[in-house]
Amino acid sequence: MLGVCYYPEHWDESRWAKDARRMREIGISHVRIGEFAWSRIEPCRDHFTFEWLDRAIDVLHAAGLKIVLGTPTATPPKWLVDEYPDILPFEENGQVRGFGSRRHYTFSSRTWWRESARIVEKVAARYGTHPGIVGWQTDNEYGCHDTTLSWGEEDRKAFASWLRRHYQSVDQLNEAWGTVFWSMELASFEDVALPARTVTEPNPATRHDFWRFHSDQIADYDRMQCEIIRKHSPGRWITHNFMGFVSDFDHFKVGDNLDLASWDSYPIGFVEKFPFSEAERTRWAETSHPDIAAYHHDLYRAVGRGRFWVMEQQPGPVNWAPWNPVPKPGMVRLWTWEALAHGAEVVSYFRWRQADFAQEQMHAGLNLAGSDEWSVGGREAAQVGRELAMLGTLPDSGRAQVALVFDYASYWSTMVQPQGKDFRFEELCFRWYEALRRLGLDVDFVRPGGDLADYRLVVVPTMVHVDEAARAALAGAEGVVLFGPRSGSRDRSFRIPQELAPGPLQPLTGTRVTQVSTLRPGLSDAVSGEVSGAGIRWREYVDARDCAVLARFANGDPALTRRGNVMALACWPDEDLLTGTLRLAVEAAGLDTLPVPDFIRLRRRGDLLFAFNYGTQPWDLPESANPLLGTRRLTPQQVAIWRG
Amino acid sequence: MLGVCYYPEHWDESRWAKDARRMREIGISHVRIGEFAWSRIEPCRDHFTFEWLDRAIDVLHAAGLKIVLGTPTATPPKWLVDEYPDILPFEENGQVRGFGSRRHYTFSSRTWWRESARIVEKVAARYGTHPGIVGWQTDNEYGCHDTTLSWGEEDRKAFASWLRRHYQSVDQLNEAWGTVFWSMELASFEDVALPARTVTEPNPATRHDFWRFHSDQIADYDRMQCEIIRKHSPGRWITHNFMGFVSDFDHFKVGDNLDLASWDSYPIGFVEKFPFSEAERTRWAETSHPDIAAYHHDLYRAVGRGRFWVMEQQPGPVNWAPWNPVPKPGMVRLWTWEALAHGAEVVSYFRWRQADFAQEQMHAGLNLAGSDEWSVGGREAAQVGRELAMLGTLPDSGRAQVALVFDYASYWSTMVQPQGKDFRFEELCFRWYEALRRLGLDVDFVRPGGDLADYRLVVVPTMVHVDEAARAALAGAEGVVLFGPRSGSRDRSFRIPQELAPGPLQPLTGTRVTQVSTLRPGLSDAVSGEVSGAGIRWREYVDARDCAVLARFANGDPALTRRGNVMALACWPDEDLLTGTLRLAVEAAGLDTLPVPDFIRLRRRGDLLFAFNYGTQPWDLPESANPLLGTRRLTPQQVAIWRG
Amino acid sequence: MLGVCYYPEHWDESRWAKDARRMREIGISHVRIGEFAWSRIEPCRDHFTFEWLDRAIDVLHAAGLKIVLGTPTATPPKWLVDEYPDILPFEENGQVRGFGSRRHYTFSSRTWWRESARIVEKVAARYGTHPGIVGWQTDNEYGCHDTTLSWGEEDRKAFASWLRRHYQSVDQLNEAWGTVFWSMELASFEDVALPARTVTEPNPATRHDFWRFHSDQIADYDRMQCEIIRKHSPGRWITHNFMGFVSDFDHFKVGDNLDLASWDSYPIGFVEKFPFSEAERTRWAETSHPDIAAYHHDLYRAVGRGRFWVMEQQPGPVNWAPWNPVPKPGMVRLWTWEALAHGAEVVSYFRWRQADFAQEQMHAGLNLAGSDEWSVGGREAAQVGRELAMLGTLPDSGRAQVALVFDYASYWSTMVQPQGKDFRFEELCFRWYEALRRLGLDVDFVRPGGDLADYRLVVVPTMVHVDEAARAALAGAEGVVLFGPRSGSRDRSFRIPQELAPGPLQPLTGTRVTQVSTLRPGLSDAVSGEVSGAGIRWREYVDARDCAVLARFANGDPALTRRGNVMALACWPDEDLLTGTLRLAVEAAGLDTLPVPDFIRLRRRGDLLFAFNYGTQPWDLPESANPLLGTRRLTPQQVAIWRG
Ligand SMILES: [Zn+2]
Ligand SMILES: [Zn+2]
Ligand SMILES: [Zn+2]
Repeated sequence: MLGVCYYPEHWDESRWAKDARRMREIGISHVRIGEFAWSRIEPCRDHFTFEWLDRAIDVLHAAGLKIVLGTPTATPPKWLVDEYPDILPFEENGQVRGFGSRRHYTFSSRTWWRESARIVEKVAARYGTHPGIVGWQTDNEYGCHDTTLSWGEEDRKAFASWLRRHYQSVDQLNEAWGTVFWSMELASFEDVALPARTVTEPNPATRHDFWRFHSDQIADYDRMQCEIIRKHSPGRWITHNFMGFVSDFDHFKVGDNLDLASWDSYPIGFVEKFPFSEAERTRWAETSHPDIAAYHHDLYRAVGRGRFWVMEQQPGPVNWAPWNPVPKPGMVRLWTWEALAHGAEVVSYFRWRQADFAQEQMHAGLNLAGSDEWSVGGREAAQVGRELAMLGTLPDSGRAQVALVFDYASYWSTMVQPQGKDFRFEELCFRWYEALRRLGLDVDFVRPGGDLADYRLVVVPTMVHVDEAARAALAGAEGVVLFGPRSGSRDRSFRIPQELAPGPLQPLTGTRVTQVSTLRPGLSDAVSGEVSGAGIRWREYVDARDCAVLARFANGDPALTRRGNVMALACWPDEDLLTGTLRLAVEAAGLDTLPVPDFIRLRRRGDLLFAFNYGTQPWDLPESANPLLGTRRLTPQQVAIWRG
Repeated sequence: MLGVCYYPEHWDESRWAKDARRMREIGISHVRIGEFAWSRIEPCRDHFTFEWLDRAIDVLHAAGLKIVLGTPTATPPKWLVDEYPDILPFEENGQVRGFGSRRHYTFSSRTWWRESARIVEKVAARYGTHPGIVGWQTDNEYGCHDTTLSWGEEDRKAFASWLRRHYQSVDQLNEAWGTVFWSMELASFEDVALPARTVTEPNPATRHDFWRFHSDQIADYDRMQCEIIRKHSPGRWITHNFMGFVSDFDHFKVGDNLDLASWDSYPIGFVEKFPFSEAERTRWAETSHPDIAAYHHDLYRAVGRGRFWVMEQQPGPVNWAPWNPVPKPGMVRLWTWEALAHGAEVVSYFRWRQADFAQEQMHAGLNLAGSDEWSVGGREAAQVGRELAMLGTLPDSGRAQVALVFDYASYWSTMVQPQGKDFRFEELCFRWYEALRRLGLDVDFVRPGGDLADYRLVVVPTMVHVDEAARAALAGAEGVVLFGPRSGSRDRSFRIPQELAPGPLQPLTGTRVTQVSTLRPGLSDAVSGEVSGAGIRWREYVDARDCAVLARFANGDPALTRRGNVMALACWPDEDLLTGTLRLAVEAAGLDTLPVPDFIRLRRRGDLLFAFNYGTQPWDLPESANPLLGTRRLTPQQVAIWRG
Repeated sequence: MLGVCYYPEHWDESRWAKDARRMREIGISHVRIGEFAWSRIEPCRDHFTFEWLDRAIDVLHAAGLKIVLGTPTATPPKWLVDEYPDILPFEENGQVRGFGSRRHYTFSSRTWWRESARIVEKVAARYGTHPGIVGWQTDNEYGCHDTTLSWGEEDRKAFASWLRRHYQSVDQLNEAWGTVFWSMELASFEDVALPARTVTEPNPATRHDFWRFHSDQIADYDRMQCEIIRKHSPGRWITHNFMGFVSDFDHFKVGDNLDLASWDSYPIGFVEKFPFSEAERTRWAETSHPDIAAYHHDLYRAVGRGRFWVMEQQPGPVNWAPWNPVPKPGMVRLWTWEALAHGAEVVSYFRWRQADFAQEQMHAGLNLAGSDEWSVGGREAAQVGRELAMLGTLPDSGRAQVALVFDYASYWSTMVQPQGKDFRFEELCFRWYEALRRLGLDVDFVRPGGDLADYRLVVVPTMVHVDEAARAALAGAEGVVLFGPRSGSRDRSFRIPQELAPGPLQPLTGTRVTQVSTLRPGLSDAVSGEVSGAGIRWREYVDARDCAVLARFANGDPALTRRGNVMALACWPDEDLLTGTLRLAVEAAGLDTLPVPDFIRLRRRGDLLFAFNYGTQPWDLPESANPLLGTRRLTPQQVAIWRG
């Protein structure tokens, strides 16, 4: 199904009905509204002006649209900021982040919780049972613009409280953090300082806890909003629209509050954000890299426990990347179908009409700036609308045979203590995902501790801290399990495990890590054996205590080991080693593969198979394929669907 | 004529007479003094010590020198800063910029205006009618060291006042800026916040207005100084010495206050400042790029409505660039002649004698550090002095046949909203200028709204906002008019025009822009037709509604269009496309060209023709040329002058 | 002899005796303790808990270890910072540097001096005569983490006092600094502002004095600690552990307080810190560059007036560089022997056991994290222990035949006023040292004014300000003296000398510098004559008034001159010119050389000759060598010792 993000407050009321009618005409069934409208519904304290929104909802509902209503907490109005400056967030350097854009609040502020609860209650109470409202969105893009972490006095106080709850006594805190080092000992929880603006780096354990604390706060804050909404709006679902490549907080924990997940898909903008090489960036500038969107679809399907939307789908060029190319013709349609292939229930375009004003005026919409004229993206959306109507209801997504265990906390750990400047958690996970996808495999993301029993192959690019639930799930996996570097290298308090890495995984892997080398660009350590290639960036020195050695570094040290169904890789693999290792694991797991060129991707949804061409050359579908949509020769930027 | 910048306060009084005599000996007729001497004429509040300056002026005057006196407002003394810290400027990050160098004031401070008026009044009253004083310089290098914009509370208040004047009601402000977006609505002008230090980018309309506001302030502040001077110093002219490549404020508006413009020419330092490629920087390191100085001469000739000086001419290596090479032998002479060729009335060297102390001690003078010994630059200046004496009075500069419309506000617009990281307004204008100059053409700069009727060719590299005067002047042009990208893409309030770009220019161009793509390095879009090459950086998708298409992009979209005398280019052109397009326009305009190698430049002043060799190889003058100065074979770093 | 850094406070008391025994087993005789333990010996004001340290010292002493006790002033505890926030240092941008790591104090704080004296007195009084204590270390790594300079109000006040002492009257200050420039004149010492956060650059003389002031403070602060210790601890020596490549303060002046110098040798981490090319960094990533450690050994031998230790020797990978590779097998042993070859009395490893917690948990120790298991470094240390036992006492280091005059103040001068962005003082000195060492020569560092009479060759890479003592020592040198660029270019007040550079050296060199050109990468000026190559980065224009010209630039200007025994080089030399010039000087000095490949280094200690192989290929010792340790074919990462 298709949706769209709409801002009735941006357009004269006289245009709403026509807008709604034209949405329906191209097959749009859902419309999201309201998430930035606080100043229009409460222009000053306790003076509410809901009437325009009442009318807007009525107009949209009357046109047959299903409405998703957003809580407006991403944009506290000026009068509120002036009244309570303690809601403002702070940069790590101590500078306040002021009014004038969005997300100018810290989750640590008690004032902010009270004010959030107040406005959410107001909105939920007014619209909770409106027949046009089918679901809710909490806030907007938690963590976007680096807003997970905040570094002010409110944050310090909330952190101290969090620490008191987690450590009970300051002695336990001192012990856990090892504050005996450099005389950093604290006499009370009031002594806790922000882990920033120190002479040299602060204690990594403190910094890691600071991250966990902020992550917990977001989940709690979101739950607060959800509980208010549920009280007032029975029978409606709740989602949040996550932002891609934001890993500052644990999305799974927020997902636990929600009925379904959703995310905001800007595939082209992400090409400049992800650490691709310059050559890759240039190559994929006008289509995006073929795994960017898919990676997130699979992640958010997990966050939503099987249910997800694309809440904002890029409909043309955007405004916020260093360069913002026009997508190649066909890409808006391709991305839409790809999201559906990965199981999206609704793909909702951002936005209905390009704004002729303010920060996003260079962001395309389905209509040209300020006008009622379709943009290229609008026409492609309409095409998908027609195609969807032709194909009818899509089958449910099934479970994949491969699981990728994705651990947000490992991002924090490796950011807090990179040890090698290019150890980037997101890049590691993405490259493992990419290599699997190039083998034609579908992948499910699984959170640490999630059930792994039925997967044929489980890959763990890394999991720095392995808690008991995660360990038990991994131990319970019946398929092949492959661990990447750094796994099990820290305990919950960010200490090195007494038995050394991989800590609690040692019984599974049969290995022990005694040294770690981080390698600058240009350095690598060749690997040969059942797989070959090289280790780069991160290289572990491993005792192979109770395992077979499948491949070795140049000096004979173990590089890839196996103990029963568990394989472990002792380095960050270069492309050859990564591909070879995953092939070996896939073979060990007895999985069929269908290797594809690097510009083609496949995906199954129920009994439907989809193929997507991100490249510049055609590719022929498998002989057996009989396309329901598209042709056997899949030309660039085209989509094919067949049953199989 | 030649001049020099002199600091009598830096040298023992016993040396002044000899200095003045030696100035005259090498042909210097003008001397600028006083512009940094506040602490010497008012060492503490209301305690004036003008006597030394009286004597210095008398000595210089007695030697036959004509004196330009500077107001000392670029260097408020310590006691003043301590008394009124509210005069200090602020960085965008909120940090105050303190005492200890120069330009430590914000134009927004009412205190500063009062104190400026007070000191200017004192100086003007004392020296306004001294027979040695022929002219005045206001302040020094407005905007240098990023001092146009300031970001403190004084600035916020002055900005709010400016907005009140421009928008009358806060409702109109909200409407103009589109503050409904992200709940940014203001309830009163007091609510206006600085458009900085926000979580993500602030409203571009606010930022654009903030820039306009600061630009207006400088013009007003300068006018305040001019009015005081005019009251006390009848019959003397007033100038300001602008700094090259400072586009933060509208120099034309300041020029309106002045009798003539002047600028400070540091051709070598600018090689490191302008976004040249590294290869270009290395190539031109010791001569400067052959268009750097000329570009500014032509700009300031326009700012001065035909009259300009070089107030500070680089006489050797300077101190402020990342690297500061010694100019090749002959360059100081070449630059001097080149300035005269472009119409400069006086070329004034900075400075008489290298200082052996303080910030500029590595900056060459006409004399070695602290001594009475000529530097290389001093000897070259003397040579020009002799040559000028030989040639006699130079004829007046005429009007060129090509106009380049230069719009400061487009710099602000594209800085506020680059959309593509390498869309640099100054680079665009400079490259268009360079391409014209390589065809041997002279160019006049014209401000938006300036009369264009008599030019055979008018180029507009870009003009983001086209006001009615500018539109009328462009519509009234009888020659060929060529528009570059982004023209007419915003209205005065920074909104997208309802009819889309090029807005009010649509009737002229017959085109409409529906999409914009910004292209990272490595991406380009090939163009072919009557011209060929490629679009880079910025590429527009154009409806050719009422125009001929002269060249097309690879997919068939219009790249270059023509409607009557108006051509429009839908991209940032690469070098081939730029050269081809300008050639086509020049041909259409029926202009004769004399293409020169990239290291040679020509220029006409009245009936005199000049040639300059910036390169490493000789070049032969046209057959017909019969040099008054120099030889027919123009060797590197040489100048030739002939009548023609 | 070998030592180790140990933190009894990090480990359960029950482990101390075994740790001590195992130290002794591998030949460790010395142990450093206590330097970060303030919060454990004074957990809150005036509540002292020395008992644990009493016991630790007794246990170590009982095992036969000699103890070096550190004063704990590098880590002021939280309660002290809270009580007296005025001890905190400030960034140049004005931001306070808070509690949470180490070195969070400014030397300018009077409070801090009082508190330091108090704790040093307490510790020295308690342990001064303990039979286990053989020496003391003051504080830890002065200046590390950019902590020499601090930019707060305490610093401003202390700077003003320092200026008052040095200049007596504000008139003399104004004259010295040339504050008449830009109206920067001060009316009193209270007017002195921090030379930072100005609109454009502050006065270089002020900034240079600010650096001198901070350098002086460190020497004074250290002397204060030494005097307290000496009072309480007769017969024990005092050292400080300097950090490599920290030149912010004059180490020679601190050395004057000490009985011997020591330094902390992290050869691999420094590869990323020193401005090597990327190719060099990759090449030497796992061994370090072969001159990094040696350069510092020779420097600190001078700082210690012949006596030095390595107080902290890298024992494996560290944690603080952008990348932290594992050293190649053998390098820990090689570095140890190399330090001994250069005259180190003791090489002390940092640290005994890898910490499983806090900031340095990725820093290797002689034992694995938290355990009693030897690391690779531990095993290599044990090997050295055995070898030392076999070889017996090493002979004393003699004097070298080559002196390199190393002037900390020139670092400050060239940082304050680089003029060319890549004029890096440390790089200049290092490259001259490297070129000498590749000729097989031993080098002594000598401070300005140090006795040069007996050296056959004296090289002065640069000495910006030449005071009378330095001039006299240079004039008194009987060997060949070679000056590099910028020598004698500023007087004590940072003014250009009246006679121009090289100022007081003019009678020695017979040259005068009239212009300076700084050259961006890609620019160079070819040199030919008795030497050839090119000048890069910095090129002087020289009058050869009273000297022979040995080589000239392309245009005929003097590049290398000679007057009697004094040679002067008028540029930053490229590798060819540097090597050629040093060869010429070496020949003129009549020195024998033994050129070695760029991966081999030699060193004499008494009658022992040492060779070290940093490369990947073998090298054969001279025919005459008969190794006491190692083999004639010196394989990679190996050491050879022979008598000769
Ligand atoms: Zn969004
Ligand atoms: Zn100037
Ligand atoms: Zn250390």
